[in-house]
Amino acid sequence: MERVAIIGLGLMGGSLGLALKRARVTDMEISGFSRNPKTATRALSLGVIDKAEAEITAAVERASVVIIAIPVLAIRDIMQQIAAHLPAQCIVTDTGSTKMQVMNWAQDLLPATVDFIGGHPMTGKEISGLDGAEAELFNGCVYCLTPKSNASSEAVQSMTRLVRLVGANPLFIDPAEHDNFVAAVSHLPILLSAALVSATATNPSWTEMSKLAATGYRDLSRLALGDPEMSRDICLTNQVNIINWMDHYIEELKRYRRLMSEGGEELMEAFLRAQQARRKWLQKHQG
Amino acid sequence: MERVAIIGLGLMGGSLGLALKRARVTDMEISGFSRNPKTATRALSLGVIDKAEAEITAAVERASVVIIAIPVLAIRDIMQQIAAHLPAQCIVTDTGSTKMQVMNWAQDLLPATVDFIGGHPMTGKEISGLDGAEAELFNGCVYCLTPKSNASSEAVQSMTRLVRLVGANPLFIDPAEHDNFVAAVSHLPILLSAALVSATATNPSWTEMSKLAATGYRDLSRLALGDPEMSRDICLTNQVNIINWMDHYIEELKRYRRLMSEGGEELMEAFLRAQQARRKWLQKHQG
Repeated sequence: MERVAIIGLGLMGGSLGLALKRARVTDMEISGFSRNPKTATRALSLGVIDKAEAEITAAVERASVVIIAIPVLAIRDIMQQIAAHLPAQCIVTDTGSTKMQVMNWAQDLLPATVDFIGGHPMTGKEISGLDGAEAELFNGCVYCLTPKSNASSEAVQSMTRLVRLVGANPLFIDPAEHDNFVAAVSHLPILLSAALVSATATNPSWTEMSKLAATGYRDLSRLALGDPEMSRDICLTNQVNIINWMDHYIEELKRYRRLMSEGGEELMEAFLRAQQARRKWLQKHQG
Repeated sequence: MERVAIIGLGLMGGSLGLALKRARVTDMEISGFSRNPKTATRALSLGVIDKAEAEITAAVERASVVIIAIPVLAIRDIMQQIAAHLPAQCIVTDTGSTKMQVMNWAQDLLPATVDFIGGHPMTGKEISGLDGAEAELFNGCVYCLTPKSNASSEAVQSMTRLVRLVGANPLFIDPAEHDNFVAAVSHLPILLSAALVSATATNPSWTEMSKLAATGYRDLSRLALGDPEMSRDICLTNQVNIINWMDHYIEELKRYRRLMSEGGEELMEAFLRAQQARRKWLQKHQG
């Protein structure tokens, strides 16, 4: 009987449990732990896990895979709590949005007898917590993997299999490169979205103005619905990359501002290039 | 037999035609004109209009309502072309994204015998042109109306009826207020979206980086797919308002940047407030 332990039963942990159940692997038991005992009980009754553990140490006992599915800044503490209780040859992974810091913590805190393989599924939704969990969350998504340099090839293979099992496509990537890339395509968008909401919704005319807000505003502001703790943790563990991208973005906005006041062909050209680039991305993404 | 003339058979004009047809008004004929004669022929065969006119003057002949559904900067020229051919007591409206400039053109160019009522349906989609047209585009959307100061109450009533007929909710608003509000909730988002695409897709690592772009990037960049001509026209006819909002937005982004480098509770607080404001908007919007 293989045992998979899920630490944290929110959107990611809950969805991983459901996706693993959907795969109907025989001889797999999923143990679950949440800092809130009620969440673990609910996860059990929803069929997300097979066993709710009240103690984190009991959850990782006999586990061949331990998935830490909590906001990044909380991962360090959890690693400290489980380190002495991890079975030898066990695979430890996470679902955190940034990877450099997590890799360093794993190096410092986890025993050499386990294989740490950082993970980051490139998916999400605006409903955080167990309520948002669904087996389909990972279908077709890119799932970044950052194995520690001396991870065994067996562990890497097992992790690859697990990622495929939940419906995702594994992508092996250097942690520093990962953090720079996600700063641009995932973290910057969160900040743009939150800043749009704060810039508009604090306006004295917002009550009237908001009546005119339609699908464009809805899409651009959607990421502001994300879990504030997760967003803060992302910012604090990927500060340098995000700030670089923000500065670059502000320059880009100023370029559009300049083209607007010059008012002519170049502005249309800029919109046209953005349209073409977005179309190209969509075609690739769908293909 | 009432005659409605639609000038411009793109996303807006085409959808208005389909929505009016869906309403099955007896004794209504819809005439259509496009600068591209093939588009008018296609609109006719798709059932968007009842009659394709090769000459714009023929399209407005005997019309009780003339709908100018083209990008804002092209409206002036069309008003000049039709002015001498408009039947007395005819209602003229448009679907342009900004209203101040359009109201001024109407004042200067249209005869005093017609009633101009500016219009702006707060809806859209990323597929521009007749291909994107659908009868459902206006269902439940806010439809801004800006009647000229001396418009007859009959004309205002007719226009209100027409807006309800296509499934939308009329909202009477001052043109200057309209332009300020849409700069914040509609035009700023277009620029944010285009700037996100240009800031990321021009990066030398884009091919690799784009693999990690998921639903967050998709939503934030969706508006970059919009018609470049329309986006440029919006920028050029609502310059001052948009630039004000861009400046305000850049300050807001810098505030987040500062909170990030200070790295603590205030950042979480900012995300939390944005989350609450976005939730509140959604609840109102859905209600």
